[in-house]
Amino acid sequence: MTLLVLLDYAAVVVFALTGALVASRAQLDIVGFAFLAILTGVGGGSVRDVLLDRNPVFWMADPTYLAVASGAALLVFFTAHLFESRYRALLWLDACALSVAVAAGAGIAQSTGQGIAVVLVMGVVTGCMGGLLRDVVANEVPLVLKQGELYVTCALTGSVASALAVALDAPAGIAALACAGVTFGLRAGSLLFGWRLPVYKSRPPRV
Amino acid sequence: MTLLVLLDYAAVVVFALTGALVASRAQLDIVGFAFLAILTGVGGGSVRDVLLDRNPVFWMADPTYLAVASGAALLVFFTAHLFESRYRALLWLDACALSVAVAAGAGIAQSTGQGIAVVLVMGVVTGCMGGLLRDVVANEVPLVLKQGELYVTCALTGSVASALAVALDAPAGIAALACAGVTFGLRAGSLLFGWRLPVYKSRPPRV
Amino acid sequence: MTLLVLLDYAAVVVFALTGALVASRAQLDIVGFAFLAILTGVGGGSVRDVLLDRNPVFWMADPTYLAVASGAALLVFFTAHLFESRYRALLWLDACALSVAVAAGAGIAQSTGQGIAVVLVMGVVTGCMGGLLRDVVANEVPLVLKQGELYVTCALTGSVASALAVALDAPAGIAALACAGVTFGLRAGSLLFGWRLPVYKSRPPRV
Repeated sequence: MTLLVLLDYAAVVVFALTGALVASRAQLDIVGFAFLAILTGVGGGSVRDVLLDRNPVFWMADPTYLAVASGAALLVFFTAHLFESRYRALLWLDACALSVAVAAGAGIAQSTGQGIAVVLVMGVVTGCMGGLLRDVVANEVPLVLKQGELYVTCALTGSVASALAVALDAPAGIAALACAGVTFGLRAGSLLFGWRLPVYKSRPPRV
Repeated sequence: MTLLVLLDYAAVVVFALTGALVASRAQLDIVGFAFLAILTGVGGGSVRDVLLDRNPVFWMADPTYLAVASGAALLVFFTAHLFESRYRALLWLDACALSVAVAAGAGIAQSTGQGIAVVLVMGVVTGCMGGLLRDVVANEVPLVLKQGELYVTCALTGSVASALAVALDAPAGIAALACAGVTFGLRAGSLLFGWRLPVYKSRPPRV
Repeated sequence: MTLLVLLDYAAVVVFALTGALVASRAQLDIVGFAFLAILTGVGGGSVRDVLLDRNPVFWMADPTYLAVASGAALLVFFTAHLFESRYRALLWLDACALSVAVAAGAGIAQSTGQGIAVVLVMGVVTGCMGGLLRDVVANEVPLVLKQGELYVTCALTGSVASALAVALDAPAGIAALACAGVTFGLRAGSLLFGWRLPVYKSRPPRV
């Protein structure tokens, strides 16, 4: 199993867990859990593969992805009540999933010879689209757009780290590690210490 | 006209009717009716075709699909007031559309030689995505995620029935009939008799 | 630079401005501005290219699109407070973006030899999808579905104008101009003078 496949697996499993947690908040049945888990787990990578015209889409080449996402849904269905705060569990699992998904997305774009701009976009798309689909379908405020938190910024900075590592001739494994580390570090800092960028504040219009 | 084309037509027409009914609830004009009707009618099959990399997408190969979806929009624009409850009409039309769309999606995946996991997903995607797009765009609670009702479960069980029939060497027509029958039967049972799976109930956390 | 590329650029820039304005209404940070600007700017054209199976998608062939969308985000981040009414600025910029995007979408479909039905749909898809994605993600009421305003109608009529011009052997530039002019004219008339089509009104059911 190559590194990129491993990253894709990790992203699918952890994003599937977050999808199932959202399903638990919406009190769905087990098939609803699996639906949201699979949508969240493979959504970002599917958009990436369709845009990059990779055929077949990664989970169609190897349906094990669907099996592990369903397994994650089953696990959460029977254990979600053990978490003291499902929302905190969701936030931290989502942070883990984001980190590996960004590394997978940037790595796959690099491995297909894309330029740096497309690498950055694919890192962000792979990282953010699964969670965005999950939140839009479940009608929650998208994490991507939450005020006063770093989210897309983490994905973008992680992708930049990956691109830098590759530009310095680092092996793909180091680039992926740097990417996931930077992404997770920034997101964790935002969740724990409130790290943020200045937001737009409307000022009164000029007279 | 082959069986799969016929199923695609039926799914487009009936989903288009549901899109137009949602447009009537949102009090749109005739072009808005056509927009939602076409989006709902061809949405699920378009996602399926893009994921399966079928070119051209089914309604681009034969624009008659767009014409019949527009016709359905026109029909609803002038007759929706005749229904006593537009929401009930919507639910039952959606159940019919779901059934034929699942059969079309699973059948097309089988006809392109996909494995069973992909067949199940394509059945569910073709069945559920059109209605999901309709509900997300029109800002209604997605039927897919309504608590205490079977929806994705019907699509999944119908797809399993289709896969079973094919595994038993049944002809494609029988597989499609079994799929549509199982899907519609379960959905009707859920609407009429409240059939449902146990939903996730949060319990107090362990001490 | 060919005419179609120029239209694509104009659509990306102006839609990116609208995405950034929505980001300012949601009080996001600069990366959130760029995210919504790029999503809105390239969303419609990406859906068009994926459906038409154009490879690579237009902004992957030339990442300058991403740069200009990011520049538009930056511009709005520092100047949005200068507008007296950001919502009015949004509506009018969106009208401009719609006009050029419809012309780009119809033109590209024509240049790839599609029939008239697909040309009309691609005009509407390219014009409406970017703004629809923006509004769904930002959880605003989609402009596409606002009651008592012409929106999809403008895109459709503009696409018809483009198809008519081509059928009359007009050069592509004239077709694009006619398309953008008709689209903008109708949309402006709707915003300024309240032009509208009759909407569906539910009547009491028959006894």
